[in-house]
Amino acid sequence: MSQRKLRVGMVGGGGPANFFGAPHRRAILMDNSAELTAGALRSKPDESIASARELFMPRGYPGWEAMIKSEAALPESERIDYVTIVTPNDAHFGPADAAAAAGIGVLCEKPLTTTLDEARRLHARVRSNDVPFVVAYTYTGFPMVMLARELVQNGEIGEVRKVEAWYLQGWLATKLEAENQKQAAWRVDPSKAGSSGCGGDIGTHAYEFVRFVAGLSAVRLRARLKSFVPGRALDDDFTVLAELNNGVIATITASQVTIGAQNDNGFRVIGTTGTLEWSITDHLVRKHYVGGQPLRL
Amino acid sequence: MSQRKLRVGMVGGGGPANFFGAPHRRAILMDNSAELTAGALRSKPDESIASARELFMPRGYPGWEAMIKSEAALPESERIDYVTIVTPNDAHFGPADAAAAAGIGVLCEKPLTTTLDEARRLHARVRSNDVPFVVAYTYTGFPMVMLARELVQNGEIGEVRKVEAWYLQGWLATKLEAENQKQAAWRVDPSKAGSSGCGGDIGTHAYEFVRFVAGLSAVRLRARLKSFVPGRALDDDFTVLAELNNGVIATITASQVTIGAQNDNGFRVIGTTGTLEWSITDHLVRKHYVGGQPLRL
Amino acid sequence: MSQRKLRVGMVGGGGPANFFGAPHRRAILMDNSAELTAGALRSKPDESIASARELFMPRGYPGWEAMIKSEAALPESERIDYVTIVTPNDAHFGPADAAAAAGIGVLCEKPLTTTLDEARRLHARVRSNDVPFVVAYTYTGFPMVMLARELVQNGEIGEVRKVEAWYLQGWLATKLEAENQKQAAWRVDPSKAGSSGCGGDIGTHAYEFVRFVAGLSAVRLRARLKSFVPGRALDDDFTVLAELNNGVIATITASQVTIGAQNDNGFRVIGTTGTLEWSITDHLVRKHYVGGQPLRL
Amino acid sequence: MSQRKLRVGMVGGGGPANFFGAPHRRAILMDNSAELTAGALRSKPDESIASARELFMPRGYPGWEAMIKSEAALPESERIDYVTIVTPNDAHFGPADAAAAAGIGVLCEKPLTTTLDEARRLHARVRSNDVPFVVAYTYTGFPMVMLARELVQNGEIGEVRKVEAWYLQGWLATKLEAENQKQAAWRVDPSKAGSSGCGGDIGTHAYEFVRFVAGLSAVRLRARLKSFVPGRALDDDFTVLAELNNGVIATITASQVTIGAQNDNGFRVIGTTGTLEWSITDHLVRKHYVGGQPLRL
Repeated sequence: MSQRKLRVGMVGGGGPANFFGAPHRRAILMDNSAELTAGALRSKPDESIASARELFMPRGYPGWEAMIKSEAALPESERIDYVTIVTPNDAHFGPADAAAAAGIGVLCEKPLTTTLDEARRLHARVRSNDVPFVVAYTYTGFPMVMLARELVQNGEIGEVRKVEAWYLQGWLATKLEAENQKQAAWRVDPSKAGSSGCGGDIGTHAYEFVRFVAGLSAVRLRARLKSFVPGRALDDDFTVLAELNNGVIATITASQVTIGAQNDNGFRVIGTTGTLEWSITDHLVRKHYVGGQPLRL
Repeated sequence: MSQRKLRVGMVGGGGPANFFGAPHRRAILMDNSAELTAGALRSKPDESIASARELFMPRGYPGWEAMIKSEAALPESERIDYVTIVTPNDAHFGPADAAAAAGIGVLCEKPLTTTLDEARRLHARVRSNDVPFVVAYTYTGFPMVMLARELVQNGEIGEVRKVEAWYLQGWLATKLEAENQKQAAWRVDPSKAGSSGCGGDIGTHAYEFVRFVAGLSAVRLRARLKSFVPGRALDDDFTVLAELNNGVIATITASQVTIGAQNDNGFRVIGTTGTLEWSITDHLVRKHYVGGQPLRL
Repeated sequence: MSQRKLRVGMVGGGGPANFFGAPHRRAILMDNSAELTAGALRSKPDESIASARELFMPRGYPGWEAMIKSEAALPESERIDYVTIVTPNDAHFGPADAAAAAGIGVLCEKPLTTTLDEARRLHARVRSNDVPFVVAYTYTGFPMVMLARELVQNGEIGEVRKVEAWYLQGWLATKLEAENQKQAAWRVDPSKAGSSGCGGDIGTHAYEFVRFVAGLSAVRLRARLKSFVPGRALDDDFTVLAELNNGVIATITASQVTIGAQNDNGFRVIGTTGTLEWSITDHLVRKHYVGGQPLRL
Repeated sequence: MSQRKLRVGMVGGGGPANFFGAPHRRAILMDNSAELTAGALRSKPDESIASARELFMPRGYPGWEAMIKSEAALPESERIDYVTIVTPNDAHFGPADAAAAAGIGVLCEKPLTTTLDEARRLHARVRSNDVPFVVAYTYTGFPMVMLARELVQNGEIGEVRKVEAWYLQGWLATKLEAENQKQAAWRVDPSKAGSSGCGGDIGTHAYEFVRFVAGLSAVRLRARLKSFVPGRALDDDFTVLAELNNGVIATITASQVTIGAQNDNGFRVIGTTGTLEWSITDHLVRKHYVGGQPLRL
């Protein structure tokens, strides 16, 4: 039996969205086991086709509708195996649902959808069509984050008592959206970003540390979502005190107005016999044990 | 007119409590403007007198009652100007109230008393006798913490939007009090420590950062006090989500079970035009401005 | 005119050498503008062919001699554009010289060759055949290192006065080669590593910071190459005090016996109006100006 | 037998030199076992006497000559036990020699004298009069530096193989002495600072780490003393590659032109079984063992 590369179709991630598209393409290509076969990379049809060509993708499409329709019609030996969806939040549901309906696998950027109703419909679709489906949380792909998860699972810190997770940025501390900054504009617009700004954009990443690393999830919470910059409809600061299953406490803090913070996320998982710490500016998972503490005077 | 040194009487801080007494003595002596005149440094009378002699204090007393009575009877030119109280929490009220009653000034370690009622009675006493009275929060004496306070007051970060304050330790992650560890024993005993363990011991320091540095105070809060180590009557972990005057949000986190944390306290004050950060392991106050951010790829 | 991907042939980097091969493959594939067309990845012919197949390379060869001969015979529209050479030091010259002789471009791992004579012959060959030729210094591909170079070139720190460069490891502090550790074995063997151990292996990277970032090169130097571990023929510690063109001083320090150092390299370039600092554990280039210094008490 | 406090006389450290005087006074007073009895704190007689009064010193003198003469004439029960000399480099020899001649102990700031001849004469005097004599290197008083020394002495890192010591500053990167900056002016003036600028001022501290912590001393060395700022007579940058007794290598680097460096000193002592690291911005001595290395990916 001969081995073959997976065939991937990409939705979004071209032009100015290259910021998001490029890391996905690198991840797809990095071990030479998959290829970029098809793309509907931009919203305008001609730009979408041109973008696919520039990026060496054999089949460029004017939009995701055309891509999914055409690909579904191809023989299985040529059809893409899955789509990677890297569009703004409000354009996740459409291609994800269509692909799943066509029996094509989906890797979808977070947050899943902009409304709870869409999320439920998508969940039902995926379940009934039985297609592979993944929501991408980029930080769960960091080797050190994967190591931390494994250490928790192996019982290296005993029973988890408490989790702290954070994601701090400062770039939205002023009204950047009034200066035609595209990345700012859609994030503060409820019609594009959904019902939460800071929480949906980066708070979700912090919460995913709780789920992925500590293996726990919230059952009850108290949250303070604040819109600090005047005139902003969505939260730009997000503070949560949560009770997890098993009674563990978690604090989940995200902010887009912490001036000086660049993209500072991380977590601390505190167990009965040890603590694990990681932050994005540290190449290491720090593991501390009882009795293993360095001397500080 | 001739200048003279202040005369200080010390209550507690001898023998095994030298850990607390020594920094107070250094602070009193450091600029040569005060002298250690009297001491009632230990609970046993003979040890108390011996301890004062060892520490070069001219007048050693068997206990604080004797000290305050005798000192109050001396002429003003010889009498101590104030007492420094460095005893366990449950032994603050007695000497503080007696000194204030005798018209002698007081510098008292935090937390003020172990009950709200005692705190109110002491407050009334100090007010009616009009004596100088200070509660000592040691970290407000760090030059960098004083600098941060000044920067906030000078408007260097604009209006405060959010405050994060923390104090993490790990030494009580296991049942140290069962091993006859004296420092652990009184801290987990409600009769000595008062109604909160971790909160009273170190959470108060974190909250003082909110008050001292940001110049704000809590008006409403939600707290989770947890006793993680089985059999412990008081909290060993303390998480607070507070609303400050002016609607500012604060998170105040303290823990004695965060294995690996030594004595890690600090704060982040987030304003409309800048952020201030300080932690005890950093010699600097970090000040960040909009537009002044370093490039990180 | 149609765009096409570059075709790359890889020499070495399969099997246990995947540690070196994998990053090269990721770098080749990351922007989808090149493809892994041919491979001679291991020394044993059958393993070499199997390895190419596992890594999805269309043309697997039993060795580099066969690869270069066969590829050179292919029409230009199919032939590989260049070879990437990722073998141990003593196996650089052979494939590099053969490829250059056949008019095929070369990207060769550092250090170029194990003898000065080979280096000179290779230089002459590349010059006479006019083929593209690159020596790979992996750290010059770090975005922050490239940024630092650009800042120096743009005059952001004025005239360079002094350069410090370092590369510290500790893994060879004990006689690992006596335990059949393959990575250790060839590095301490003069027939494989060449005439320097630590210097050739990692000192070269530190010196490349001087060249690449500061844009300077050594004209005179005093070096101390030490073999600390008994029985070792090559240096495991390398300290250089160099005079660069323009009279600038540089210290270049490399060590394989600094226990605790993982792979700690970096540089400090000190100029008349500023200093640039970078280390591999820091995501940032730190730039300091006169008068722009933070306050530290 | 009754215990008494030591009586200390201070030379220098008043007025603008308070920067140096204050830490010495705090160190003298901190454990209440010594008192500031006499002072000749400034060069002008009236300011000298006023300064002593302001600082609560019972006996103020117009100059060190008067102080030593008067104190030597007092009965032993009142006379100062030793002098602390905190004057600029060129004013060390005078009071040190006079005190030693009078049988009064000496604690003298580094560097000892400005010429080798003076150092030798002082050495002979101290030896013949048999008085206690100490040269103060302030960083040897840091608890972490003392701990590191103890760890080396206890064999915790085996045999020392290599020592790196450094002291970096940037404040003299521009011609500050031309702006009437007093601290700059005397340091760049050979008649006040002696025959080395950067080396004598801070290089000595770095070298003291080699001596104090590693317990070794240089037997041969190669040095580059550079005067980077035009018009400066003394070195403002100091790089030494030294051979220590036992053949150990040391690099000793000091700089006053490393813009961005505040007062960054530290050391790394590399042994056969471990490495010790300390820097002034780190509260810890870091100790690394073979096999005890954290995982970094």
